[in-house]
Order: sequence, then structure tokens, then C-alpha cells
Amino acid sequence: MTSARAKKSPAPIIGRTAIVAGNGSLPVAVAASLRKQGANPLIVTIKGEADPELYAGEHAEISIVELGGLMRILKAENITNVVLAGGIRHRPEFSAALKPGNGNLVALYRFMRAFRLGDDGLLRAVISTIESYGFRVLGAHEVVPDILAPAPGCITRKKPTQEGRENIEAARKAATLIGSLDIGQAAIAVGRRVVALEGVEGTDAMLQRVADLREAKRINRKGGVLVKCAKPQQEVRADLPAIGVSTVENAVKAGLSGIAVEAGRTLILSYEDTLAAANAAGLFIQTFEQEKS
Amino acid sequence: MTSARAKKSPAPIIGRTAIVAGNGSLPVAVAASLRKQGANPLIVTIKGEADPELYAGEHAEISIVELGGLMRILKAENITNVVLAGGIRHRPEFSAALKPGNGNLVALYRFMRAFRLGDDGLLRAVISTIESYGFRVLGAHEVVPDILAPAPGCITRKKPTQEGRENIEAARKAATLIGSLDIGQAAIAVGRRVVALEGVEGTDAMLQRVADLREAKRINRKGGVLVKCAKPQQEVRADLPAIGVSTVENAVKAGLSGIAVEAGRTLILSYEDTLAAANAAGLFIQTFEQEKS
Repeated sequence: MTSARAKKSPAPIIGRTAIVAGNGSLPVAVAASLRKQGANPLIVTIKGEADPELYAGEHAEISIVELGGLMRILKAENITNVVLAGGIRHRPEFSAALKPGNGNLVALYRFMRAFRLGDDGLLRAVISTIESYGFRVLGAHEVVPDILAPAPGCITRKKPTQEGRENIEAARKAATLIGSLDIGQAAIAVGRRVVALEGVEGTDAMLQRVADLREAKRINRKGGVLVKCAKPQQEVRADLPAIGVSTVENAVKAGLSGIAVEAGRTLILSYEDTLAAANAAGLFIQTFEQEKS
Repeated sequence: MTSARAKKSPAPIIGRTAIVAGNGSLPVAVAASLRKQGANPLIVTIKGEADPELYAGEHAEISIVELGGLMRILKAENITNVVLAGGIRHRPEFSAALKPGNGNLVALYRFMRAFRLGDDGLLRAVISTIESYGFRVLGAHEVVPDILAPAPGCITRKKPTQEGRENIEAARKAATLIGSLDIGQAAIAVGRRVVALEGVEGTDAMLQRVADLREAKRINRKGGVLVKCAKPQQEVRADLPAIGVSTVENAVKAGLSGIAVEAGRTLILSYEDTLAAANAAGLFIQTFEQEKS
């Protein structure tokens, strides 16, 4: 089944693009999409994070604390655009950034201060540092067509029940709140009650936790919904929440009946495969508009 | 080392007291304290929840959904006061409450509706149902002297550092927020950043998660603080957050430097032992006043 949504073409991208690749399948998808569009992106893998697939082709590797090293690579390769894609699973001690040869001291100082500001502050500092060197930072959705979750509605054959809608609302409220505190972007509600909130462990580990709680009979009510939404203060050029085939698989293991994501500010990786996996499992995927506050 | 806090005597309790015992060591502590005061409490163990120790002496057992059965026991034993102590780990399907012989239909209806209101609503409904039968519901702190966390200050030899105080503030804010949504009562911050939020899994499982994240090098910053506080809308006669010796042990395993709890609205079980365990491990225990909102 092909989705009915209109295919949008991204605006043409002038100059060479580098993909700074954290973990997950987003960097792989961004690279594949750019190549399909006839471009040859530079892959900059983050050590200990990037998908092994990205090491197969031409690439440069940096450590997460080597912002100076990244700038040198971008300059040497005559890069115009930078896409920051994928998460960072292993958080460094910020003192590690102090090692010699780590480039511009002013950039380093801002970078280190930003570590104290949490994810949002850090991302903003990294982006503004990269931009201060004259590069243009683009979001993954600006280079990959149709990767954003579509307008509010249900994209699967299965639709949420009344209880499913109430689960969406309870988890949406919780996920938005913890997002506003820059803690996580996801929550799970079962029986109209939020049972799990995402912290550093990430969405897959949270889904595993709910599977374990069910196994231990600490959650007996059937069904439940995973909600992911952007933080109110989200920097949309990086760290947009994402779901994909593995999210659907883990939601099934956790005994959930559906997934709901924010329309236009969440990424659906491998849209057709994700949709097919949800339809095969009888799961719903609903997109919603965030309330204006 | 004996704590300097003044020993308060609880108000004398008229009539026989029943302890409805959920999981954890609080029901055991309440029973021991009442016996020390010369009383002979009736122990009503909740099936699958209560500590095995409570099954050794005289007791009655109920299932969590048998509110009617509880009323019959309380009446038959000529009970005046009821203490609801300990948590409920295994949440029943509310339809299970529908089985025949489960007492008063009006009470049952209220009880079932309350299941949809989450923990707070359920507890309030249970308490008001018990009271509507003429029993008096008391909080554990009304029968056990000195079980409430003392006035704001540090009760251990180790004091929080500046970073420790910032961790307390970050986790306190998060714990209060999720409490206001009736999700959990605890959060953990490391490096001034909230890394874990409590859901249905409970505090010990959340501490284990942080231990695992450290093991996987996904949290590299040393130290961190566990914060527990009552929900803003907390019913103080049941479900007050508690810490004890096992909380200290699990905090040590999670690599934390301290624990902070809300003064006057959190229980410290086995105060002297908990304090001794924290002092032996070099952990701080700080109590704080919740901001008025």
C-alpha cells in the first residue's frame, strides 16, 4: 500500500553537504537520499556512535569532543552544508574536550559551557559554532523529502479506540512536559495512565521496560500508546524525535496498540517500511498537532 | 551516632488499629512501632504484595480488588483505625473487581470509576469508602513517631557540593512535575541534568537503570542525586514517598553522591539504620522544603 501523501521535492541544495553521523538509521537514510538526488555527501562518523554501514564507504571519523577537528575536516573538504543526524548515546565528560589540539579556544570554551546547559544548549552551541565558521546547518528534513510525520490523522489501517485516544492525550501531556525540561521526548500510557517516561535510556529501552513490567504482571491492562513529540523549545535542525521499523517492533513487544507522533516535527524513518510493519502487526500510527501554549 | 532531632510522641490512638499491608518494609515498621506502644494491630495482608514477615503472625489476607472483603474483616474484628501502608506493585485489571460477592455495589462502582483516575483518584476513593463505613483512616506518620523526614537540612556527615545542590534542584523540579501528573515521585540528576524519571517501575528499578547506563558508559559524569518528594496534590494518609536502607544501597550501586527528600512529607524508614548506611557509604541525605506554587 502506497501512502497517499503528496511527494514534496526539497529545495535544491547548493554546494557539497557533510553528514555528521551519530547513532541510529537516520544518517544512513540521509546519505541514501542525497545520493539518490545525485549528490555525493561527505560522511563524518562520530566515533562509537555511527552505524557500521557508514564506515563501508568514504568517510572521516571524529570523536564527539573534537569540534576543532570537525571544522578542519569541513574546511579541507570544501563543505557548504552540514546535516547533524542521529543521536549521541555515550555522553562524554566535558573535561575530555580540554585535550590539546582541539582547535579554537573560544569555540571550545562555548562548547564546554554548553555542556552544562543540557542537550538543547549543547546542540545550539554546536550549531552556532559550526555556523560561525561559515557553514550552513540544515535539518535532515530539509534534505530528505517526506521524512517528516504527515499532517494530523491516522496513517495505518488500524485506528485508535476511545481508550487509545485517551492514552495518546495522557502520554502527549507527559512527553511535552518532560520535553520542556529537556529530559526526554517520549512517554507511554496504558489504561489512560502514564507508566513510563523517557530519560537518557532512550525510546527502545523504555519500550523494553514496559515489556518487562508486563512480563512481571505489574501492568495488566492491555494495549497502550507510545507518544513522541518535539520539545516546545526544539531546535528543528537536529535531534527531532524519530520512529522507524524498530520502534514498531519494540512497541509490539511491549504489548502496545499504537504509536502517536507530532505532525511536522517528528521524523518517520523508512516511511513505507514503518507503515507496512505497523499494518502487519495491527498497530495504529497517529499523528497529532501540538497544542499551542 | 544518634540523631539530634527531638522525639515526638504520637497522639494516643483510641481503639484497635488495622494495618492494610502492601509491599515494602513500611507495614512491618508500622506494626513493630504499634506493638512497641503496647497495641496489638490487626494485620491485613494484600495478596502478592505484603512482606512474608507479616504472614508469620496473626493476619487476614485480601486481594487488592476485594474492598468488600476488607470491610467485612474490619467490622468482624471491631476495628476503629485503619492504616494503609506500603505500595501496590501489581496493578489489577479493574474488571477483576467485578467478581461476585465483592460487597456493596455503590462502593464497588466508585472503586471502579476511581481506577480510571490513576493512583491519586484510586487512593482517595478507597479512603473515602473506608471512612464511609465509619472507620478512621490514619497516615503511617500518625502512628509511628519520627518517621517523617526532618526539617530542611543535611542529616548525614557528608554534605552536598555546589554540583550536588544543582542536581537536587534539577531533579526536584522534574519529580514535582511528574508528581503533579500523578506519574511518579522520584527523579535522578547527574551533572545537573535529569537522566531518569520514575514511572510504574518504582525507585529501586530506576536506580538500577542508572547503574546500567553507567555500566554501558552512557552516563560518564560522576555523582548524581536521587530526589523523592510528595505530589503537590498528595493524600498524606497513604502513599507518601519513602526511602530506607535499600534505597541507600541502590543509590550507591548507581554511583550517586546523595539523596534528597522533601521535609515533612517523605518517610525515612528505619531512620538510624538508613543514616548509618549513608554515613558508611559517604552519601549525603538532604531534606528540603517544597516551593510554594
